[in-house]
Parts: sequence; structure tokens; C-alpha cells
Amino acid sequence: MKEFDLIQNLIAPLVRFDGADGLTDDVSLLPRFDGAAVITTDTLVENVHFRSADPLYSVGQKLVRVNVSDCLAKGAKPKFALLNLTLPNSMSDQQIRDIMGGVSADLTYFEMSLIGGDTTSSPTDLVVSLTVIGECAEGAPVRRSGACVGDDIWVTGTIGDSGLGLRLPPAEVSVFPDLLQAYLVPSVPDSQIAECISLYANSSVDVSDGLVADLTHIVECSGVRAQISLSDIPVSDAADRYLDRSEATLRKEDLLGFGDDYQCLFTAPQSVRPVILSWASENAIRLSRIGKVLEGQGVSLLGADGQPLRIVNGGWQHETNS
Amino acid sequence: MKEFDLIQNLIAPLVRFDGADGLTDDVSLLPRFDGAAVITTDTLVENVHFRSADPLYSVGQKLVRVNVSDCLAKGAKPKFALLNLTLPNSMSDQQIRDIMGGVSADLTYFEMSLIGGDTTSSPTDLVVSLTVIGECAEGAPVRRSGACVGDDIWVTGTIGDSGLGLRLPPAEVSVFPDLLQAYLVPSVPDSQIAECISLYANSSVDVSDGLVADLTHIVECSGVRAQISLSDIPVSDAADRYLDRSEATLRKEDLLGFGDDYQCLFTAPQSVRPVILSWASENAIRLSRIGKVLEGQGVSLLGADGQPLRIVNGGWQHETNS
Repeated sequence: MKEFDLIQNLIAPLVRFDGADGLTDDVSLLPRFDGAAVITTDTLVENVHFRSADPLYSVGQKLVRVNVSDCLAKGAKPKFALLNLTLPNSMSDQQIRDIMGGVSADLTYFEMSLIGGDTTSSPTDLVVSLTVIGECAEGAPVRRSGACVGDDIWVTGTIGDSGLGLRLPPAEVSVFPDLLQAYLVPSVPDSQIAECISLYANSSVDVSDGLVADLTHIVECSGVRAQISLSDIPVSDAADRYLDRSEATLRKEDLLGFGDDYQCLFTAPQSVRPVILSWASENAIRLSRIGKVLEGQGVSLLGADGQPLRIVNGGWQHETNS
Repeated sequence: MKEFDLIQNLIAPLVRFDGADGLTDDVSLLPRFDGAAVITTDTLVENVHFRSADPLYSVGQKLVRVNVSDCLAKGAKPKFALLNLTLPNSMSDQQIRDIMGGVSADLTYFEMSLIGGDTTSSPTDLVVSLTVIGECAEGAPVRRSGACVGDDIWVTGTIGDSGLGLRLPPAEVSVFPDLLQAYLVPSVPDSQIAECISLYANSSVDVSDGLVADLTHIVECSGVRAQISLSDIPVSDAADRYLDRSEATLRKEDLLGFGDDYQCLFTAPQSVRPVILSWASENAIRLSRIGKVLEGQGVSLLGADGQPLRIVNGGWQHETNS
């Protein structure tokens, strides 16, 4: 596919902002907002962030979602995007249509407009970047550093599906299609979550590195300790079934280290707990309270039996086991 | 080099904007401007936009300059940048320091702040993207579409050095170091040019595809014709010497198709010609008036003898030669 055709047929139709001049100029006007806005960028690289065999449509969706997730976790709704495509010379027209189909579907789903980008054919692997501008739902973006002692710890959706999907043995793929799908296309929370986070959260991140690792970012930036309970970690029915039948090679606590969940993880004062619960109910967004913020440092995990677990040789063990 | 060290030692020091939170969060605050601002992004790929043997320091500079050039041509001064690095696993720490040294030097030179980015090690070639936000010097960005019949056509700096540098036979490199350098590190005009363009230009582009190709963008978007004179095209002393001694394999008119000049090419009403000339003199910026805008379509080139040339088989010939 010629660059001109790619831009005219597959990229320019994603522009819904007059200031981008239909991508016919060297720049776009930078969108203006009444309140605060944020900007973020993420790159996906073949054989690093996705597998060569993954459907390209889902790679396009994942590219949008990993950036959307960053905005939502800060209390901002994604609005505009710039797309950098480095396409291997060997890509067929259909493959280009596939990846752009995924980008297009998700930009539309999240009500975003493309406003710029750059496209290159290259002798290298597929490398795609997206830069996203989001508008804060209320006030300033919610940072990692505001967690206060006494805060509740909340997480959206479920944890671990994507990590299990990535690790599914080929023979299990047809038995657990939802887990593979969660790996291919992360199920980020509905954009409404930005409103909840901006209104109520003291600190927030998205779960990309793993729930414990990302919670560690919050406690380190905030100078506090977090205690979470394994039994409160939300998992999907599919993950539950998988853990039940997988002959004990994986346990629920392993899900906390997987990453790529792209859910929002935030802390909020205990006083707003009822408001958050009723907000979640009204907006039909799954929110789970998984722990609390305490004085100290680090992240502690309480096992299903209420006893503390800690990481030994990369796995969680009862503290008394050491 | 570990990602943490790379970010802390080489990337975070390039942040000079509080809203970026030292790159410790998932997003940066989007900078706000009193007037209009623009956003643009460009990717450089190894073996496409630069050669594997090119010094990495200069690749870092080129990455900044190709984006700066887009801003300046629209009458905007570059202010902020987001950097996406896809670094081959095989890159040494020194090579990473080299490319970041070039990025750092030029962000400093152009008085820009980094506000975000993403870094990945990968099994692929080097792919680097920069997204730049620029502030319009006056009013709105200058588009490609505003050229009017009667306008003068102006270009900054000199044309062809970069293209000659790219094509230098190895034996000539030591004889024409300035040409090689112009290819490695494009000499974009001083940022002050944004003021001149925003004040006086009707239409503007940067010269990346080649002077005639980029002028064609202007005339097509504006619905006019451009006539330029070969004898008015500014070339450097080095280019002059190269063309003189290169045994007629290249002629001056070939320089108009080379590209990668990253100069500003704009049209402005004849009435402001004296103002532009005195502005150029006061600001010590080389500006050349190379032609005029006429009714019709396409780009015509008058040869040194005043006779029209046209492109035949990829080269310029007198129209009567056909």
C-alpha cells in the first residue's frame, strides 16, 4: 500500500478535529481545554509487547488501550491521539488494514480523534507508538503521590486474566477463550471511571507492571504502606476456573505479579467509601476494595487465611514458612 | 543500561516543566498557552532515515530538528517534546549515551523541555520518535493553503547541502566535510524565523521532500502556480564548489529534488518585501526570494538563461529539448 493511500483511506478518516486540517499539513493545532489536560505516549514493539502471531487488529486495539488506561487512571478522558507507524516492508495491504481496523475501532469506541502521526515502511519489525491527550474530568490529574494513611485501596475490573491469557498452553486456548482475549485486547474500564477517580481518589495508577508493582509505585511516591487481602482481589470466572483446574501450577497470588491488566488502581479516603460504592453501582462499573493504606513502607499481602504472605524466590509464601 | 538508569540519568534531566512531574508518573500535564499552539510528530528509522554507520549523536540531533523544522515553518517556536525510544538490545551503554547526548544538546539549544516518553529494548533496529508541541509566535499556524497570486516565494538558508552530503562518494567526504555534516545534522533556521513567518507569510512548509515537491504542496493546497528561478536558489559555497568539480554528474537543478534541507519555504505578499528584507538583515537570518506566485497550477522553473525547464525522465531539461 502506498503511503498516500494509507493516509487517505485508513488514517485521515479517523480525524474528527478541524484543527488537524485532515492531516494535510505538517502540524495539527494543539487542542485547547477549559480545564487541565494530560499527555502520555506508549510504544508497542513486535516480540516485546505483542507476539508476531497475535492478530494485528488486536494489536491496534491494544495500542489505543494502553494509552487510554494511563489517562483514565489519572482522572482524564482520552480525547486526541497521534499515531506513529513503522511498518515492515513485508506487511500486506490486508495486514495494514487489520492493524488500522483495530486502531480505528477503539478510537471510535473511546470517542477520540486522530490529530497527527507519521508513517514509515521499514526493513525492521513492527513498531507502533501512540501519543494521547486526555482532558481531566475535574481539576488536576490524580498523581501517584497522594495516598494518605487510612485510605481505602480500590481496583477496577478483574486482575490476572491478561497474564493468564499470555501464559495459556496452546491446548487450553479453546477452553479459555476469554483469557486469551483479555491478553490480546485489555478490557480497560469504561471512560466514566475518570470522573470517579478525579472526584474521589487521592492517588492512582494503572495496572500495567502488575498489581503489587504498581501499588508499590503509589506507596513509594506517597511515603506510606499498603496492605491488601488476597481474598478481596477480584478475578474473573474464567480465571477462577483456570486456577481451579490448573493442577496447582499457578495460584491466585501469582496474578498480582502478571501485569498488563490495564485496570485502574487508586486510593481514596474511607469517608467517601459509600459514595464510591453508589457511584460504581449507578455507572455499572466493577470496583473492588482490596485493602487499606497504613503507616510504614512497602506492600503487604494477607493470604486467604488472614496471615501475611511475603515474596520468597519470586513466589508468595507465608511469612512463617521462611 | 537498565531502563531505570537510562530514565534517571539521561532522560529525566531533560525535563524543565513541573507538570511533567520528573517523568515519575504515567502522564504529564499538557502545557497551556495564551495563544495558539501546534503539535507534530516524526519517526526516524535505521536504514530508512539514517544509516547504521551515522554517528548516533547526530541521529539524536536530527530527530529533534526534523520536528523543530515542522514547527518553525508554521510560525511556531518548539517548546515541549515526548520521546519514544526503541533501542536494539545490542546497543552499548555508550551508544545510548551518544544518541541521548544529541537529543539533549538540541533540546537545550532550542530551549525545549522533555515532558514524556517511552523506552523499550527490542530485538529490532533503532526506531525513534519525537512528538513536539510548539507555540505560535503570532495568531494561528501558517498553513500550506494561503498562497495568493502576486506573492513572493522565500526560502531560508541554502538548498541541497544535505542531499549532496548523503550522496558524497567516500573519497570526497574529507574534501567536503560541510556537506556530510549538513546531511547528518540539518541546519534548520534560527527559531526567530517563526516570528517572521507568523507575521508575514500567507503559506509555508518546511523543505523535507525537496524544494519543488514541497512547493508543489503549497500550490496544490492554494490553487495557484509557482514560478521559481534557478539562479535565485541559494546554495552554499561548499555545494557550489562540489557542483563545479563534480564533472557534470550533478547540476544545480538536481538539488531541488533532494530533500532533507529542513529549511522554511513560504510565500508572502509583495508589499511586505522590504519589511521581510530588513527583518532578515536585523536578525541575521539568510532569506532568499526565489520566485513568485501566479495564476494556474504546478511549479515552473526558469533556467539560468531565463528559459523554462521541465522534468523529463526525472531530470530537468529545457522545454525545447523534448
